[in-house]
Amino acid sequence: MAWWWEAMVVVVAAAAADGGTGAGSSGTVVSICVFTAVLCLCLVAGHLLEENKWVNESITALLIGCVVGAVIFLLSKGKNSRILRFDEQLFFIYVLPPIIFNAGFQVKKKQFFHNFLTIMSFGIFGVFISVAIVSTGCYWLFPKVGFGNLDAVDYLALGAIFSSTDTVCTLQVISQDETPRLYSLVFGEGVVNDATSVVLFNAIKNLDISQLKGRVALKVILDFLYLFFTSTMLGVMIGLSTAYALKALYFGRHSTDREVALMALMAYLSYMLAELLDLSGILTVFFCGIVMSHYAWHNVTESSRITTRHIFATLSFIAETFILLYVGMDALDIDKWKTSETSFKTSLGIFGIIISLVLLGRAAFVFPLSIMSNYMSRSSERAPITFKHQVVIWWAGLMRGAVSIALAYNQFTFSGVTLDPVHATIITSTIIVVFFTTLVFGFLTRPLISAMLPQHRQSTAVAGGGHSTGSNSPKDDFILPFLSLEEASGSGSGFLQAKRSISMLLERPVHTVHIYWRKFDDKFMRPIFGGPVDRDRTNYS
Amino acid sequence: MAWWWEAMVVVVAAAAADGGTGAGSSGTVVSICVFTAVLCLCLVAGHLLEENKWVNESITALLIGCVVGAVIFLLSKGKNSRILRFDEQLFFIYVLPPIIFNAGFQVKKKQFFHNFLTIMSFGIFGVFISVAIVSTGCYWLFPKVGFGNLDAVDYLALGAIFSSTDTVCTLQVISQDETPRLYSLVFGEGVVNDATSVVLFNAIKNLDISQLKGRVALKVILDFLYLFFTSTMLGVMIGLSTAYALKALYFGRHSTDREVALMALMAYLSYMLAELLDLSGILTVFFCGIVMSHYAWHNVTESSRITTRHIFATLSFIAETFILLYVGMDALDIDKWKTSETSFKTSLGIFGIIISLVLLGRAAFVFPLSIMSNYMSRSSERAPITFKHQVVIWWAGLMRGAVSIALAYNQFTFSGVTLDPVHATIITSTIIVVFFTTLVFGFLTRPLISAMLPQHRQSTAVAGGGHSTGSNSPKDDFILPFLSLEEASGSGSGFLQAKRSISMLLERPVHTVHIYWRKFDDKFMRPIFGGPVDRDRTNYS
Repeated sequence: MAWWWEAMVVVVAAAAADGGTGAGSSGTVVSICVFTAVLCLCLVAGHLLEENKWVNESITALLIGCVVGAVIFLLSKGKNSRILRFDEQLFFIYVLPPIIFNAGFQVKKKQFFHNFLTIMSFGIFGVFISVAIVSTGCYWLFPKVGFGNLDAVDYLALGAIFSSTDTVCTLQVISQDETPRLYSLVFGEGVVNDATSVVLFNAIKNLDISQLKGRVALKVILDFLYLFFTSTMLGVMIGLSTAYALKALYFGRHSTDREVALMALMAYLSYMLAELLDLSGILTVFFCGIVMSHYAWHNVTESSRITTRHIFATLSFIAETFILLYVGMDALDIDKWKTSETSFKTSLGIFGIIISLVLLGRAAFVFPLSIMSNYMSRSSERAPITFKHQVVIWWAGLMRGAVSIALAYNQFTFSGVTLDPVHATIITSTIIVVFFTTLVFGFLTRPLISAMLPQHRQSTAVAGGGHSTGSNSPKDDFILPFLSLEEASGSGSGFLQAKRSISMLLERPVHTVHIYWRKFDDKFMRPIFGGPVDRDRTNYS
Repeated sequence: MAWWWEAMVVVVAAAAADGGTGAGSSGTVVSICVFTAVLCLCLVAGHLLEENKWVNESITALLIGCVVGAVIFLLSKGKNSRILRFDEQLFFIYVLPPIIFNAGFQVKKKQFFHNFLTIMSFGIFGVFISVAIVSTGCYWLFPKVGFGNLDAVDYLALGAIFSSTDTVCTLQVISQDETPRLYSLVFGEGVVNDATSVVLFNAIKNLDISQLKGRVALKVILDFLYLFFTSTMLGVMIGLSTAYALKALYFGRHSTDREVALMALMAYLSYMLAELLDLSGILTVFFCGIVMSHYAWHNVTESSRITTRHIFATLSFIAETFILLYVGMDALDIDKWKTSETSFKTSLGIFGIIISLVLLGRAAFVFPLSIMSNYMSRSSERAPITFKHQVVIWWAGLMRGAVSIALAYNQFTFSGVTLDPVHATIITSTIIVVFFTTLVFGFLTRPLISAMLPQHRQSTAVAGGGHSTGSNSPKDDFILPFLSLEEASGSGSGFLQAKRSISMLLERPVHTVHIYWRKFDDKFMRPIFGGPVDRDRTNYS
């Protein structure tokens, strides 16, 4: 590792000397050098520690960020600890899109859409419930520890900031093959949660608080629904356009580089176009990712498929590491800690309040909504969400990460700087909460999940619906004849079949919608936009 | 294509209205949207026109850029035609590195090193000769058309600006399989030329012209050699470090995403580190690319190999298209044309002078150096560079492209703006020359090469040294026993062998050095840094 350190020392020394006379603005060159070098270090360290039971990549990146921040702080003789001002624009324009697009691109669509209603209830209603609890709790408890003087909008913003979760750490521990449904719920909730909290945060920022309370709440919800629908449609449209372009234009001759470039550029375009039209880029790019992996991905060469799958994952990985690293380096920024004038006791009080509200706010929706989901699908053949799985879902969303930091900076600073002591306190509290949840909760995740899912093999059977369940399971026997009948007789023929379908729809709405969607997909969408039409029906579960 | 246009119109309308209230700075969002959308358009258009005899991708991108510039100009009612100020920092920090790294990564190393001396003489001495001719010519002829008032450094900078070539267009036409040596010469010269002209340009910029003339020239050459050597060494070191890290750390278990991320980040780090240390990032990243593809690439998974190969090519492709697009859009910037106060006649004179000097400056080194190269390797079994091939090499380097524009902006503007009429004239002349060479010369390239290499199959036999030449060719029979003998007897044993080697070295220096390098590579480098050791010797030609 000697050469790493040599390179680091050279660069950090240059950064500390505020020097370098390279081409262009030397400050930028130094920052990029340090970040690139430290990112490489994180990659290698993360890989070496992969088998470790306690440490995960998030923790590694945060700690390395801290150490680098400390080194810069010492080398610059206490003047500054960071070499790059936090820029939410950088975060929202360059770093977030690849993470969210990759989430959409890699999501196991079958599981995602099977659990669609549950995921959406967690990801949307859950955030609303959590925001309400955190906001009200802060409003009620902050004055009791001697910290107040915030607007109503600020309290709502706090709710949104501390309701955005970071599930990456938990996902590294849960096995997608062994507990596919649990994985899908945690993963799906994480993505929808990201989108919801950002959209809700923007809706809150634009609030005119002087209006009537009830109407304000209604307006937020309507705004949210409008944003959700239009953003999704835009993403789907751009995804379908890309799929069609790839299918129509590239028939017969293929160029991997062009295909990859087109997919990446169109994905990015979907995000930027949504931002331009005041929609939610995060939702747009997520659905664009889903549609692209469902249709466009099938229209390209084998090399393009491998390349896109890995390159989007790599970009997302680099972006996530970058954020955690940045948060780590930023934590030692002295100015913020100086600007915040709260006593240690008050800080501790604020920290305690936020952590308690986070724990409570999440419990307040995970358990009720799980029970409701179990009740709704009681007649379905799918196994319910067990209590242990509920605990895992609850735990998975306790970590706070990059989105929280970005939202906090967005609301309470101007270009990463704040002179208001109250706002500085909120920023430092956010950093402490992110650190604490990522390090302590992250540390405990692996042992906790080992305790909750002790016999993975057994839990697979409980959760049901794996990829490997063959056609010998009873539900497949139930579905297969139904589909064959319908396919044999064509659409819209046979009274018996229609009656059966209606009773199915009433009994198991999501499942039935899913079946119709698949038929529609096979008949109209895939022939136009691409994808294998004659896929194996028996794999459907 | 309707949806393309719809998206375009929406975005361009927003850009023209200078509007959009999206998150962050709306101007940035608009610019990114327009560029991403137009890049997508270029991709599709380039693909559709691929089979066309006259148009190539450079021409397409330039023309589309022009059209978009015109649309923005009209929609903004003549106020401005560009939505992004030219920023050499953007070019040198973000756009150039992937292009050069990819060049190093994709270069056919065998051919490249076989023709090493010829390529270097074209790429280094050629540029020196061309700079001398263009600078002297401009100094002598510019006053004759009523345009003067430039410093000596400016004339030298003009020489460097108009000595940097853009061979992409020609490379699209020459077949790597049919004329491998010609392809390698053109490709290799293009890369070394990029590096040389940038390095030389920087050396010229830092010149203190008040010193004695002779010493100045010596200093430029010494500076150049120092930069060349240190930059190359840095690139090789970082490439080897990456190879070693990948080999040592990833033994047994692999993670494609981490491997790809590490390679990409280390490559970028090499460029930035070189810039930080005042070296030539372009040379560093080029040699880093060569070393990575020679060693590191063999230490990663099959998926990583496919992904890296394509992703670097894709990035390079996007970066090149971006530049041409930008040049096209920038061409209609009214301010520059207004600031330049020269008459039409003077402009035409300047244009004529530069084009003539470009044609002459290139002829002045391609033909003599080719003849010299043929003379040097007369005793080798390799076929000489035929006159027709010399013409193709000459023609391939006539196009001027992105590097010329970037250097011109760097020297003659401040952040893309100039108020000096003389400097504005140079910028507009550069744009005209780039346009003319790319459009007119580019247009003629395919017909010219068809005329020069009429029977591709036959020319393969003349050029010799293809990939498919089996062990039945006489030269392989000549080399194989030599290698077997040496390998059987071990190193340093046998007087006969040493004598033979020395006579070989005197007779065919490059070839013999290459053989020793391969032995060293197989014995020491590959076991440490990775790569197949037991490669097929018979494939060596």
